[in-house]
Amino acid sequence: MMECIFCRIVAGSSPASRVWEDADTLAFMDIHPVTPGHLLVIPKRHAACLADLTPQETGQIFTVARSLAGALRSSGLRCEGVNLILADGEVAGQEVFHVHAHVLPRFVGDGFGFHFNASRSRPPERAVLDGWAGQIRAVLGPAKK
Amino acid sequence: MMECIFCRIVAGSSPASRVWEDADTLAFMDIHPVTPGHLLVIPKRHAACLADLTPQETGQIFTVARSLAGALRSSGLRCEGVNLILADGEVAGQEVFHVHAHVLPRFVGDGFGFHFNASRSRPPERAVLDGWAGQIRAVLGPAKK
Repeated sequence: MMECIFCRIVAGSSPASRVWEDADTLAFMDIHPVTPGHLLVIPKRHAACLADLTPQETGQIFTVARSLAGALRSSGLRCEGVNLILADGEVAGQEVFHVHAHVLPRFVGDGFGFHFNASRSRPPERAVLDGWAGQIRAVLGPAKK
Repeated sequence: MMECIFCRIVAGSSPASRVWEDADTLAFMDIHPVTPGHLLVIPKRHAACLADLTPQETGQIFTVARSLAGALRSSGLRCEGVNLILADGEVAGQEVFHVHAHVLPRFVGDGFGFHFNASRSRPPERAVLDGWAGQIRAVLGPAKK
């Protein structure tokens, strides 16, 4: 596991600017911050992707992320809004394959943003949305929650 | 509360293509999908922003979001990765002021992405990161988790 940079941070063998630690979760500054104050929240246990997390771990990570968002807003760092972002898979922007939630302070003119496919301006008919919903429901058993 | 479109969806007085419902949480298709299969997860209770959520509700929303991400990957919809995104505040991209997590199927060439401030190419010194971490820790009491 020690080939994983985040596991090395958990173990204390790689440096990090730590902000929060509990039994299961660690939060520290992103070394390539998108905006000043950009934080990462990780499970201490190595989990490469969202599917490797337990539901409980998922809840813990985002509960910590929510607390950090509140702290950023009163920290004195510029923070007029917050994005929580998790990238699961390379195509989604995941760069380190140890699950992490980004907590991103936002302010007017911060240079960060989302870009969209032009087709978003033509929203689909309800029947199309209902079709997608049916496909997802078909594989989402109650037991899977 | 019925001025809130998401509260109307919860109440059943506005249409939605529903995918998941439990006692506290509802998930349905975004009517302006960024990619096909774009889902929203909300607390049934009206909460405008992240600060209005309880830690438990935060955990529930993202636990459901994780399950939906898994379902998207096996739904037949194109899904090679997933982004979970929450926008807290207008500057962060929040458009409906009833907290919601986006669950976004991603695939090569989907047209969605992030854009960054050019300054991200010059990562800050460790002392700067440590300074930010100290500012955030100073307002993040253990009791705030």
